[in-house]
Amino acid sequence: MSSAATRPADPDHLWSVDEHLEDILSTVRPLEPIELQLLDAQGCVLVDDVVVPVSLPPFDNSSMDGYAVRVTDVAGASEEFPAVLEVVGDVAAGAAEPVRVGPGQAARIMTGAPLPPGAEAVVPVEWTDGGLGAGPANGMRARSLAPEGAEGQVSVYHPVEARAHVRAEGSDVKAGDRALEAGTILGPPQIALLAAIGRGTVRVRPRPRVVVMSTGSELVQPGEELATGRIYDSNSFALTAAARDAGAIGYRVGAVADDAETLRSTIEDQLIRADLLVTTGGVSVGAYDVVKEALAYTGDADEAGGGVEFRKLAMQPGKPQGFGTIGPDFTPLLALPGNPVSSYVSFELFARPAIRALMGLKDVHRPRTRAVLRADQVLRSPEGRRQFLRGTYTDGEVTPVGGAGSHLVAALAHADALIVVPEDVDVVEPGTEVEVVLLG
Amino acid sequence: MSSAATRPADPDHLWSVDEHLEDILSTVRPLEPIELQLLDAQGCVLVDDVVVPVSLPPFDNSSMDGYAVRVTDVAGASEEFPAVLEVVGDVAAGAAEPVRVGPGQAARIMTGAPLPPGAEAVVPVEWTDGGLGAGPANGMRARSLAPEGAEGQVSVYHPVEARAHVRAEGSDVKAGDRALEAGTILGPPQIALLAAIGRGTVRVRPRPRVVVMSTGSELVQPGEELATGRIYDSNSFALTAAARDAGAIGYRVGAVADDAETLRSTIEDQLIRADLLVTTGGVSVGAYDVVKEALAYTGDADEAGGGVEFRKLAMQPGKPQGFGTIGPDFTPLLALPGNPVSSYVSFELFARPAIRALMGLKDVHRPRTRAVLRADQVLRSPEGRRQFLRGTYTDGEVTPVGGAGSHLVAALAHADALIVVPEDVDVVEPGTEVEVVLLG
Repeated sequence: MSSAATRPADPDHLWSVDEHLEDILSTVRPLEPIELQLLDAQGCVLVDDVVVPVSLPPFDNSSMDGYAVRVTDVAGASEEFPAVLEVVGDVAAGAAEPVRVGPGQAARIMTGAPLPPGAEAVVPVEWTDGGLGAGPANGMRARSLAPEGAEGQVSVYHPVEARAHVRAEGSDVKAGDRALEAGTILGPPQIALLAAIGRGTVRVRPRPRVVVMSTGSELVQPGEELATGRIYDSNSFALTAAARDAGAIGYRVGAVADDAETLRSTIEDQLIRADLLVTTGGVSVGAYDVVKEALAYTGDADEAGGGVEFRKLAMQPGKPQGFGTIGPDFTPLLALPGNPVSSYVSFELFARPAIRALMGLKDVHRPRTRAVLRADQVLRSPEGRRQFLRGTYTDGEVTPVGGAGSHLVAALAHADALIVVPEDVDVVEPGTEVEVVLLG
Repeated sequence: MSSAATRPADPDHLWSVDEHLEDILSTVRPLEPIELQLLDAQGCVLVDDVVVPVSLPPFDNSSMDGYAVRVTDVAGASEEFPAVLEVVGDVAAGAAEPVRVGPGQAARIMTGAPLPPGAEAVVPVEWTDGGLGAGPANGMRARSLAPEGAEGQVSVYHPVEARAHVRAEGSDVKAGDRALEAGTILGPPQIALLAAIGRGTVRVRPRPRVVVMSTGSELVQPGEELATGRIYDSNSFALTAAARDAGAIGYRVGAVADDAETLRSTIEDQLIRADLLVTTGGVSVGAYDVVKEALAYTGDADEAGGGVEFRKLAMQPGKPQGFGTIGPDFTPLLALPGNPVSSYVSFELFARPAIRALMGLKDVHRPRTRAVLRADQVLRSPEGRRQFLRGTYTDGEVTPVGGAGSHLVAALAHADALIVVPEDVDVVEPGTEVEVVLLG
């Protein structure tokens, strides 16, 4: 695993959003496959092609509740002149050795039951008297209430063609066919098919375990009392939820105080359950930016992992960012800025694609579209930086919500899109077409 | 709770898809609210408006790492003629009692830290020498490495206006504002806002617990050996996954044999953990249709629940359906047909909306759109029945996958849409516009 952190770093280099993302996606590798129970594999990516071991259906079977017959026995049958056949027994679904249907005979048969030997077609019960001798029937009486229904005579009022109401062996899929292709995401219908062909487990890439920790001595746990000068921790909640939303197993670590040693030991403790670490805060130029202080370790040969590099991005919000790998397994770590909007936007742009790359998904990005800007005034954006503003998208139009401030959580909670203002644009007029990331 | 099952039933009445759905949605009520931890409430619907208890930010604070100053002290400052101020200490984020900034003084301040008394604005560290006396600085040295940085002198090279780089108390949301409206679905940004205003728990409608059981003596558990005449159980897997996909907590019960007493006692056992029961199979006119036999109980005054009614729907696939309520809590039960495609389509059309109604969601249906039919031949549909064919949708076009057979699981696994052919249409020509349900 390589990382830009191993390359000679120019501290003054301003990284573009795309360069940073490319560095992340070229470092993060899909997780090793694991064999999972079907229902545990929901939402995961199939690693191998799955081949059908036994044809579906595995045997010719009835598509109706009715009577299995020989075609010649019911040729010309009508309501006026029914064909009267001897009922030789029941064929229920799951029957291992169905009765044999001889000339002049019929077997009562249920949907999905194997077509018995000798029979060529199925007459639906609605085309018979149901063996009750009382004219056209709507159905059969429950066997437990009328066990004698499997004996006696049945009057058939319609002819049938050979194979009528019979589902042929292999008409769904044939043994040897490819059921599902490697790379398929397993949703309910794919799980249906895997179960139908008898697969109890399946090899997939597992959901990544993402450990989220916020840093800052000012952070108070929601629900506790807010002391002077302090604020509630929201990042660890928001990003754990966002990790789950991206398909990961999210673990939230309570806020860590601004102390480099505490942070280092917390991260070391968490490595055991992390496929990806996400921190918030402490990445800027301040004297208390402990994530940077704790992780921006270079030149120590005893240090495991590729190292974490701290960068400035040509981006607003989200200018300061850290990325690299740590620990003996070179676990990727994203150090996001601490302002709530900065951390959320950074997560969407960098952590979500990383999670989806770990899952082995081909399409790691949120959908994007173009929309007409609806606004009362021009949008201003710092030149040379790609700006991501919060907005609401409806029917090809996007309206900004709140301002550009990276502390505006309320506006974020009412947005469903990010408006992208490119690096070379500093003013966007209302009515202009803009690029939009749909947060869906 | 009322159900059509309490109305006098005409067994020959052919129900439309819409009538059946309306009966379900008029019976199913949103679950009672529950107070949940924030991260447990992800994806749930907020029951009450949430009001902001304390303004955000709760106090004026710095948006940059830099120096808190008085405006007059830095008026006219330039690189040539810097303003030299006495550094009186650090103001870290979370500081409860920041130092006072007097005339000619500055306090080193971190992003998010409260603006200290006496100070009027913040000068970013990049506009100073960082207190190092060595010309323009890029940042501060980590406090643990250079604790003396909080003392001495700082040279400021730019003037600032009053309130520059200060986030005003309440500029995000003000105490008393409505943070979120009742009915909001809690995604990551909404969870961010709730945490930011100090809410550790929130009152939502919980995820419904959906118990899924398939019925049929022919069913074998995937992974086991397939005996003659038997097939693998796929419905219980597919529908448990579909229930989870709809937002529910899905519980899969292994396939139940075709025995009415066993089925009744299994259902009674499962009621304790069910907000909704979904069965597959045993609802048609056959002699072994035990779901119908076990549940179509009428006239017994000792029987709890409103009763389950079995119907014929003007629909393909999915003609036989059961719906009603059972047990002391009138738990809704959907009895779906047993063919894999029938049960899956029925789940999408009836069980998914029921689950989303239990969650209190306003929009319970899958999105629909119109698309041009791409096909080699005309589609044929039985007149008088609404047909749902499997298809793949791309860019305004839909292509059928597989045939109309309700046993075609493989085709279902490759579809992402249902093509709707109305009751009064029996032939659809290629190139025609059709209605499409997007399975997303």
